[in-house]
Amino acid sequence: MKVLEPRARTYFGEAGAEIDESLLRVRIPQGLAMTLLAKAPQSFTLRARNPERNLIVDKDHTIFAAVGGPAFVADLDHGRRSGTYAEMCDFIKLVQSLNAIHQEGGGPFEPLDLPANTRHLDLHYAQITLTDKNWQPLGLGKERALDGLEMAAISLGTTRERLRETPVFTCVINTNSPLQLDIPMAEGLMVMAEHGQCVVVTPFTLAGAMSPITIAGALAQQHAEALAGIALCQIINPGTPVIYGGFTSNVDMRTGAPAFGTPEYAQAAQISGQLARFINIPFRSSNVTTANEADAQAAYESQMALWGAITGQAHLILHAAGWLGGGLTASFEKLIIDAEMLQMMSAYLEPLEVTTDTLALDAIAEVGPAGHYFGASHTMSRYETAFYAPLLSNWENYDSWIERGRQTTVGRANEIWKKLLSEYEAPPIDPAIDEELKGYVERRKREGGAPVN
Amino acid sequence: MKVLEPRARTYFGEAGAEIDESLLRVRIPQGLAMTLLAKAPQSFTLRARNPERNLIVDKDHTIFAAVGGPAFVADLDHGRRSGTYAEMCDFIKLVQSLNAIHQEGGGPFEPLDLPANTRHLDLHYAQITLTDKNWQPLGLGKERALDGLEMAAISLGTTRERLRETPVFTCVINTNSPLQLDIPMAEGLMVMAEHGQCVVVTPFTLAGAMSPITIAGALAQQHAEALAGIALCQIINPGTPVIYGGFTSNVDMRTGAPAFGTPEYAQAAQISGQLARFINIPFRSSNVTTANEADAQAAYESQMALWGAITGQAHLILHAAGWLGGGLTASFEKLIIDAEMLQMMSAYLEPLEVTTDTLALDAIAEVGPAGHYFGASHTMSRYETAFYAPLLSNWENYDSWIERGRQTTVGRANEIWKKLLSEYEAPPIDPAIDEELKGYVERRKREGGAPVN
Repeated sequence: MKVLEPRARTYFGEAGAEIDESLLRVRIPQGLAMTLLAKAPQSFTLRARNPERNLIVDKDHTIFAAVGGPAFVADLDHGRRSGTYAEMCDFIKLVQSLNAIHQEGGGPFEPLDLPANTRHLDLHYAQITLTDKNWQPLGLGKERALDGLEMAAISLGTTRERLRETPVFTCVINTNSPLQLDIPMAEGLMVMAEHGQCVVVTPFTLAGAMSPITIAGALAQQHAEALAGIALCQIINPGTPVIYGGFTSNVDMRTGAPAFGTPEYAQAAQISGQLARFINIPFRSSNVTTANEADAQAAYESQMALWGAITGQAHLILHAAGWLGGGLTASFEKLIIDAEMLQMMSAYLEPLEVTTDTLALDAIAEVGPAGHYFGASHTMSRYETAFYAPLLSNWENYDSWIERGRQTTVGRANEIWKKLLSEYEAPPIDPAIDEELKGYVERRKREGGAPVN
Repeated sequence: MKVLEPRARTYFGEAGAEIDESLLRVRIPQGLAMTLLAKAPQSFTLRARNPERNLIVDKDHTIFAAVGGPAFVADLDHGRRSGTYAEMCDFIKLVQSLNAIHQEGGGPFEPLDLPANTRHLDLHYAQITLTDKNWQPLGLGKERALDGLEMAAISLGTTRERLRETPVFTCVINTNSPLQLDIPMAEGLMVMAEHGQCVVVTPFTLAGAMSPITIAGALAQQHAEALAGIALCQIINPGTPVIYGGFTSNVDMRTGAPAFGTPEYAQAAQISGQLARFINIPFRSSNVTTANEADAQAAYESQMALWGAITGQAHLILHAAGWLGGGLTASFEKLIIDAEMLQMMSAYLEPLEVTTDTLALDAIAEVGPAGHYFGASHTMSRYETAFYAPLLSNWENYDSWIERGRQTTVGRANEIWKKLLSEYEAPPIDPAIDEELKGYVERRKREGGAPVN
């Protein structure tokens, strides 16, 4: 790995890695890597402002996070555009409202009406006050990472130093594939590890572009880069919670553009899960599509990605709701479509109850041949909660559907998010904490915020 | 089971089942059932007119069949409507053209411009001449079953009697859930079993309507009904190929209407696969949705069903392409969308090659940190065939997509099926066989065809 940040190279060197200062390269012997990996916990809990929304990272849970990081926002009414802070707040309100989403994903899109150096402060204020779910910070550079930690500490009535005791953040750190860790990302990783926060080390290994054109080769490179980041966390602070991030996909070889939700993506997700389990580290995957519109392609590509993540036994699924257009866009309608897909997946994952009672042999005997079960006592005692009830799907027959305006799925999604917004209620917050947060944001804005690349 | 057909009850009675002639009921002792099940083959081959398109039924293959049986046809240009024979022929031509589809599914929709008593003869003529893939017959009543067998025999240059030597047909036989086998279905089953053809015994166990409201109960009933049909096949002709059909879904309890591609559907498909493997019988599942339009809902419900079928290790997936609106509609655009999903699934199921060459450690060393792989020799020697190439999906970036008319997935699907139709070429057929087929159809039409219910 080429490691651009000098302090990170020093950490590696002191732990016993081979350092080439002229090439800025670090080579981690296998034995050292395995020793360091063994220090990472296999399970931990992430605190939320509302303790009922704390998140468990272990093999029996999968966390669904909202989309994070796109440049644009889109909806059915106005198409794709640069987003504003007000629209970003609307998106975060929906993340709070949708039960299928467990974690805010690090800001749904860039609010371009705010200055770049202080935008993260306004984002964090929105993340803390508009939702009481766990939220993701920004790992780009030391100043942003520290601001995230300070504001999380205030929101939890504690100090940045005491955050070390329990993890609050899953902070995504991308290696600059191939085989490089740049300065802002290394700074973010170091600050988070020093504070005992969970680092999600995610190489962006697009096969054919930033990694070999074979999925096996791309995964080999992904594994090396992820292990380097995880090892650094364990050098800095042994026992730091970490997550192995898999984001291998492939490019469209005709154009060089990335493609998501492909067959190769699903294979890579499953194999990444196997690689993560091989080293006993929790696994992060994603719900992604290349489609520019929230239509059939968006749904089937997202399903390929989602099934890859679920069958890959992901602990954390980022971009689980709202991702569109190769991740350049956060879509209000896709948010609702994904929420439905996530709820369906959750219902599918509920273990089926097999008991004398649910096997219903008595009911089968009672109804007998050529009868029906609508009025059977076994039916009557269960019909209100028997099956998954959809958020978005329309199950009307064709004639009713025509009669009621022949509405498409994306049109219904548009109605649903507007209704949720109109019904939104902010989660309660201690006024003193709110004041302290506002004070912090004001002070840091006066100080000039964080440097812009 | 209530078995309405007297000859079927006689078969059961002679084999040792308990018969109650006053209630028309058959009870099969467990030992007898297990003895009969053990006679069914675990693998077999289905002949197609083109031997290269023969279908293997075994644990290493999954057969994708086109939609069969809807009442209506739909496309983007004219919406949903009753279909004509000419439109039905177009649909079958597309089934021939799409490589992702391995089997014609028994007539894509009813051609209502043809009389009901002879419609099946025209259907079979189209199935035989417009495609050289394996096709499904109609199991409804003895006359239709025999016509299917006669025409298949002619198409293969053999006789109905000699078809016994190798199976050609997978004939779907539905029990009339709960716990009943009616006369037309029993006739179809008997004719097919007597001719050594594969019977796909499929109970239609909608939980909450024709079966218990619990999925465990619905599956218990499905299993009993499927076993009864499979047992009858083995009594009639020991060693008859059979497939265990799983079609358990649930109703929308607010309306009583069936819902497809639900979480419960995916669970039921997987468990049905387990039940079929438990008795060593090949498994049939389906690709289904309740959606009335080929949009996001249609895609995500179909994906839930498809992943249920694939992870359920289905040998045969019926309605794999073209099903819409709860199975009442065959859609030209959904046919293309499904073909893309099936191709993606096939690509996903290709085992990943892991060798020194594909692991690409040499290429990773050659490119090194912060480089890219576009020009690497490892990339250049593979880029033309490296990744799945989509049939339908649009991977353009947003600006190109807007510039080229912002076409939706369903709009592209519409263009694709029209292009495929314009390029369609009929597979060759021996003119003597064609004449014989035409002669058979004419004679049977003169004779009045088959009785209409």
